[in-house]
Amino acid sequence: MNIPSKVRLIDVGPRDGLQNEKQPVPAAVKIELVHRLQAAGLKEIEVTSYVSPKWVPQMADNHEVMAGMTRQGGVRYSVLTPNLKGYEAAVLDKPDEIVVFGAASEAFSQKNINCSIAESIERFAPVVAAAKAAGIAVRGAMSCTVGCPYEGDIAPERVAYLAGLMKGIGVERVDVADTIGVGTPRKVQAAIGATLQHFGIDHISGHFHDTYGQALSNTLAALEMGVWNFQSSVAGLGGCPYAKGATGNVATEDVVYLLHGMGIETGIDLDKLVDAGQFISGHLGRPSGSRVARALLAKRAG
Amino acid sequence: MNIPSKVRLIDVGPRDGLQNEKQPVPAAVKIELVHRLQAAGLKEIEVTSYVSPKWVPQMADNHEVMAGMTRQGGVRYSVLTPNLKGYEAAVLDKPDEIVVFGAASEAFSQKNINCSIAESIERFAPVVAAAKAAGIAVRGAMSCTVGCPYEGDIAPERVAYLAGLMKGIGVERVDVADTIGVGTPRKVQAAIGATLQHFGIDHISGHFHDTYGQALSNTLAALEMGVWNFQSSVAGLGGCPYAKGATGNVATEDVVYLLHGMGIETGIDLDKLVDAGQFISGHLGRPSGSRVARALLAKRAG
Repeated sequence: MNIPSKVRLIDVGPRDGLQNEKQPVPAAVKIELVHRLQAAGLKEIEVTSYVSPKWVPQMADNHEVMAGMTRQGGVRYSVLTPNLKGYEAAVLDKPDEIVVFGAASEAFSQKNINCSIAESIERFAPVVAAAKAAGIAVRGAMSCTVGCPYEGDIAPERVAYLAGLMKGIGVERVDVADTIGVGTPRKVQAAIGATLQHFGIDHISGHFHDTYGQALSNTLAALEMGVWNFQSSVAGLGGCPYAKGATGNVATEDVVYLLHGMGIETGIDLDKLVDAGQFISGHLGRPSGSRVARALLAKRAG
Repeated sequence: MNIPSKVRLIDVGPRDGLQNEKQPVPAAVKIELVHRLQAAGLKEIEVTSYVSPKWVPQMADNHEVMAGMTRQGGVRYSVLTPNLKGYEAAVLDKPDEIVVFGAASEAFSQKNINCSIAESIERFAPVVAAAKAAGIAVRGAMSCTVGCPYEGDIAPERVAYLAGLMKGIGVERVDVADTIGVGTPRKVQAAIGATLQHFGIDHISGHFHDTYGQALSNTLAALEMGVWNFQSSVAGLGGCPYAKGATGNVATEDVVYLLHGMGIETGIDLDKLVDAGQFISGHLGRPSGSRVARALLAKRAG
């Protein structure tokens, strides 16, 4: 077992976590959330996206959030860019990294963005080129790497194919995402194994959803392969659009608890992180999706 | 990795899961739950306990439940016996196995049963002897093997000490329980490793609570040591008495999903199990504690 001694977490709460909220979340609240996450020790934060407000109204305040937040040295701020137009808007706000995306499932790609996997990656080529010319890092989010709501199980070969396309256009690192949370350890390891055909272990991050409660066992399985970058969402922000009322992103608090319990360093202060989660959960008016947060808060309440 | 290809699950829902319910659950409902669990393929069910109804009023119907249920060939029905008096009442109901218990934490032992660990095990000696003379199997539940609400972390040496005492009085197999759910993979593996000093891997079962969401990663860690017996509770029945409102027992549905996803046989029909969970959750008037059940029900609802 080559379990890493340090792990880097990328909190996607402000973007992925909040993007489907029906009620608008004020930019000031998002900025405060970013501030609280970096104060808790997060070194990577996915802040917002530059998608048409027609499709994702919750992210219409991208410029306001990016301009309004106080950046902290050593923290990487990433943003999602769906196309060249989005990239051109994003670059004005000086992100450290842009995120492009693709699905390992053809059916998902067609239903989600109305084109094939190959076409979707090809369209990102000029975005990636522009970002690299501007000295901005590029991450590729690979969705449905284990299962797809339309196709069911996804073969590792499809993941390797997508990873190869990403590599081909110059993407520097990729997320292996279990978008609908159906993965279990061996399947997740197969998806990571397929990704290793094109990216080194240092350039692969795990992004596991907790819809079926499997995210932490999948995290352990990925750690055992040497993966040391993971995405998660404070308070488990972000439900599952494919199963109403079900859990989506794994909670950052739960991942941190696992890692610290295993003696793995994250640089994160769990108490401050729980407070950040309570801040946003309080604003949204619902309990945290983090079991660790709920247990620690119950303990604090005595 | 010597991950087993088959796993045996012991559903503790009817006993451990329901014992702290404030509202009485009718014996007929408990019987129906046992019937549904065995119809779903469970081969071991912890049915009830023979504790004074003054302390655990919910289990006062032990005789009614044991006499009223229809036993299925090949299913092991176990009951908790706290002392010789409890054993003598239990034996009339012909359980296949009795469960005795002890804590790996002195403070917990003192607070919970008002005596030292050594005294508590010594008192069980005549119970174990009587059961073995009667041809009844004996399981030892070892609580607080990772952490204790009073002492904090528990050293593996304390687990080995307790396991040795259990072995000394003739206990045939033991549960390594993380009673307050604070365990993480390496700590749980250390507790199991300590237990292996006295019991073979076939005589060790994992009993992990999901209070901090860690139960499935701990299950994976135990599987990797070769453990193939686990306890769980349908619908996650049974909260955590040490953290109000927090989760206790891991849901059987969630464990089954993990195992089946890894290609490990359990003999359990997950759909029928989800239905059994819905039956009891409906009776208790609250949503299932199982993430798998919630996700599958959301999917069924379309």
